[in-house]
Amino acid sequence: MVMISPSGARAVARCIELGRAPYSDMAEGLYRGYLMPAHRAALERTGDWMRSAGMTTRVDAAVNLIGRYEGTIGGPPLIIASHIDSVRDAGFYDGPLGITLGIECVATLAAQGRRMPFPIEVIAFGDEEGSRFPAAMLTSKALAGLLTDLPEMVGQDGKTLAQALHEFGTTPEALKDAKHPGALAYLEAHIEQGPLLEAEGLALGVVTGIAAQLRYEAVVRGVAGHAGTCSMPLRRDALSGVAEMMGAIERIARDDGSDLVATVGRLEALPGAANVIPGEVRFTIDVRSGDEARRDRAAEKILSVIKSVAEDRKLQLEVKKVHDLPASPSSPILMDLLEDALVEAGHPSRRLVSGAGHDAMNMAPLAPTAMLFIRCRGGVSHNPAEHVEPVDGDAALNVMLRFIEKLGETCV
Amino acid sequence: MVMISPSGARAVARCIELGRAPYSDMAEGLYRGYLMPAHRAALERTGDWMRSAGMTTRVDAAVNLIGRYEGTIGGPPLIIASHIDSVRDAGFYDGPLGITLGIECVATLAAQGRRMPFPIEVIAFGDEEGSRFPAAMLTSKALAGLLTDLPEMVGQDGKTLAQALHEFGTTPEALKDAKHPGALAYLEAHIEQGPLLEAEGLALGVVTGIAAQLRYEAVVRGVAGHAGTCSMPLRRDALSGVAEMMGAIERIARDDGSDLVATVGRLEALPGAANVIPGEVRFTIDVRSGDEARRDRAAEKILSVIKSVAEDRKLQLEVKKVHDLPASPSSPILMDLLEDALVEAGHPSRRLVSGAGHDAMNMAPLAPTAMLFIRCRGGVSHNPAEHVEPVDGDAALNVMLRFIEKLGETCV
Repeated sequence: MVMISPSGARAVARCIELGRAPYSDMAEGLYRGYLMPAHRAALERTGDWMRSAGMTTRVDAAVNLIGRYEGTIGGPPLIIASHIDSVRDAGFYDGPLGITLGIECVATLAAQGRRMPFPIEVIAFGDEEGSRFPAAMLTSKALAGLLTDLPEMVGQDGKTLAQALHEFGTTPEALKDAKHPGALAYLEAHIEQGPLLEAEGLALGVVTGIAAQLRYEAVVRGVAGHAGTCSMPLRRDALSGVAEMMGAIERIARDDGSDLVATVGRLEALPGAANVIPGEVRFTIDVRSGDEARRDRAAEKILSVIKSVAEDRKLQLEVKKVHDLPASPSSPILMDLLEDALVEAGHPSRRLVSGAGHDAMNMAPLAPTAMLFIRCRGGVSHNPAEHVEPVDGDAALNVMLRFIEKLGETCV
Repeated sequence: MVMISPSGARAVARCIELGRAPYSDMAEGLYRGYLMPAHRAALERTGDWMRSAGMTTRVDAAVNLIGRYEGTIGGPPLIIASHIDSVRDAGFYDGPLGITLGIECVATLAAQGRRMPFPIEVIAFGDEEGSRFPAAMLTSKALAGLLTDLPEMVGQDGKTLAQALHEFGTTPEALKDAKHPGALAYLEAHIEQGPLLEAEGLALGVVTGIAAQLRYEAVVRGVAGHAGTCSMPLRRDALSGVAEMMGAIERIARDDGSDLVATVGRLEALPGAANVIPGEVRFTIDVRSGDEARRDRAAEKILSVIKSVAEDRKLQLEVKKVHDLPASPSSPILMDLLEDALVEAGHPSRRLVSGAGHDAMNMAPLAPTAMLFIRCRGGVSHNPAEHVEPVDGDAALNVMLRFIEKLGETCV
C-alpha cells in the first residue's frame, strides 16, 4: 500500500485491508471474533497505525486497544472509539471505520504538529457483535465499569471465555480492572447500517441517540389438521392467525409515522407440510424507537391487538419479553457541536436516531456521548456487500476534526 | 384375542392389533411402508382373517392382497377396498379400517350362509400414502391399469422399488399385470380425517367425491435489512408482504362459503433472525374443492391478489404450480344407494366432499365408486392420537351391509 497522507479515504482503505487474512478467520469473507487469531492480528496492525500517527498504545484487561495522544493541558481525554470485531461473513466497515477515522483525526493533528488541550484516546473495542461469545458489547461494558457479574460463557468454537482471555494474558476477573477513569467526551463514527441518509442524498448525520428496544418471543397454538378435510369455518389455523397479527403489527408501526419500527424477523410454522394446516407458529416481535414512551405505547398496542386476534380465532397465545433496552440519548451539547461542525463543512443538518445498538450506549457512566453516522450503500450491513464511498470517509474526517476544534474551544 | 362374531367393533379392534409389531416397522408407534417387513406380516394376518371369513386369497403383481367371496351368479365383483400401508408415526385406522370392515361384511354374509348374486372382493392396497417411495397410490393405479410408465424410484431406506418388489417375487414391469378386469362397483370406507362429522354429531357420511386440488410453491423476495435501522416507509419486508397475501388467501376461501379450502401449510422466512427484516419468504398454497371450476376460480383470484400485493410492495414474486389433480366425483347411483342405506339404518342424511385423496379416485376406469366416511375423534389423522369409536365401526358395517343388499336388488 502506497503511504498517503492522513485522509478519510485512507481510513476507508484500511477497513478493506482489515477485511482479509490474517485479519479474518474465514477463508472466504470476513469473520473477526473476539480474542480469535484475526483479532490479535488486527490489533497489531491497528496498533502500528496508531503509533505511526503519534500515539502511545496499550491493551487493557478486556483486550481493548487504546492509543493515546497527549494534550497540552491534560485532564480526561476525548475518546474516539468503535469496535474491531465483526459478525460472520461481515462487511468491512461496521466498527473498524470508527477506529481508523479516529486514527486519521490524530494523524492529521500530528502532521500539523498540533495538540489539543485535552488528550485524545482512540479505542478499538474487542467485542461489540457478540459473534463468538453469547454476550454483546462485553468490552465497552468493561471499560465503562458495567461488568459487575460476569457469567461463565462458552464460545461457538467450544472454548470458554476464560480460556480465550488466558491466551491474551488476562482473566475474566480482570475484566473489571478495565474500568476507565472517565472522559471529557465520547465520539463514535459508524456506518448508518440503514438506508435513510442515502435515500436523502446525505453523506452524514448526527445521531440523536440509540433507540429503546423491546423484543418478544411469541408462540401461537391452534389445531393442526388436514389441508383438504378441514373446512374453513372449523379451522384454528395458527399461521392465518399470525398473518393477521403481522398485518396489525406493521400497521401500528406505519401509522405512527415516526422513527418507530416493529419487525417480525423470525417465524417458524409447524409442522411445516404443504398439506397440513399449521398448528403452531413461533415468531419474534422487535419494537424500537428513540422515544421510550413511544416504543412502550406501540408495544402495548401490539400486545393488545395480537391478544384479541388470538381470542377471536380461539388460538392460544404465549408472549415472553426477552429484551428491554432503554433509550440511550446523545448529549445535547455534543450533538450541537457535531451539528455545527456538519453545517460548517457544508452539509445539510440532519439528525436521526440509531435503531441499532452501539458501544456508545454503554459510555454514559464515563462521559457525554455523540455519534456521527456515515451513509452506506443501500443501507446494507452485516453483509459482504457493505460499502462506503472513500469521499464519505473524507467528509466524516473533516466533520470529526471540526468537532474536535469546537470541543477544544468549549474547554478553554 | 377372544374370537367374537362378525362386527364393526371387531374391525376397529383388528386395526389396533395391526398397530404394533410385527405389523409396524417402528419400535414405538406405527409405520408400515409399502413392501417392508411389517407390510408382509400385515398381509399374512389379514389373509388369515379373509380366509376365516370364507374368502379365497391371492396377492397380485403389485402386492395387493385380494380376498374373494364368490357370488351365486358371477360376473364382475363388488370391490370393497382400502390401503394397508401407513405414514410414519401413524394412527391405526387410516386405511386398514376400510379393509377390516370389508372382511366383516363378507364374514357376516358367510355366517348367515348367504351369497350375493355378484362376487365380492376385499382388497388391501399396498401403497396409498407414498411413505416409502416417492409415488402415492401406486398399487391402486396398478390395479386400475393406470401405471403405463413407471420411473425408477429409490425408497427412504435406500432400496430401489425394483429391489423391494423382487423380495415379494415381483418386478416393476409386472406391476402392469396387476390390471383388474373390471368391477360392478367400488366401495371404500375410510375415516373422515376431518372434523365435520364429529362437529355435527354424526357417525357417518356419504362422500360426494374427492376434491380437485391445486398446489403452488411461491417465493417472495424483498430486501433484508436491519430491524432497527430501516424505517417503515423504506422497507421491502418479504414477510409482511406474505402476511398480507395470507390474509387475502384466507378471505377468498372463507367468503366462498362452500367446500372450498385454501391453506398455506409451509412457510420459511429468511434469513430468520429476530433483528433482521426478512428478505425472502417461501411458502405453499393448497386450494381444493369438490367443484373443479370453483377451485379454479378461487385459485385465479388468489394468484391475482398476491400479484397485486407484491406489486404494491415492490416485492418480487415467483409462483409455480406443482400439483393439479382433477376432481373425482362419486357415482350418483351408488351415492343414492349408500344414502338410502344410511337413512334406513337410522342416520341423518349427510353428504360431504373428501378433501383428501383416496384410492377410490383411481378406480374410475374400473367401476363406479362410492365412499363412506366414518367420524374420527377431533378430526385427527396421520397421528397416533387418531381414534375411532367401536360403535361407529358397528354403524359403518350395518350401512355397508345394507348397501350390499341394495346393490344386489339393483342387479337382479
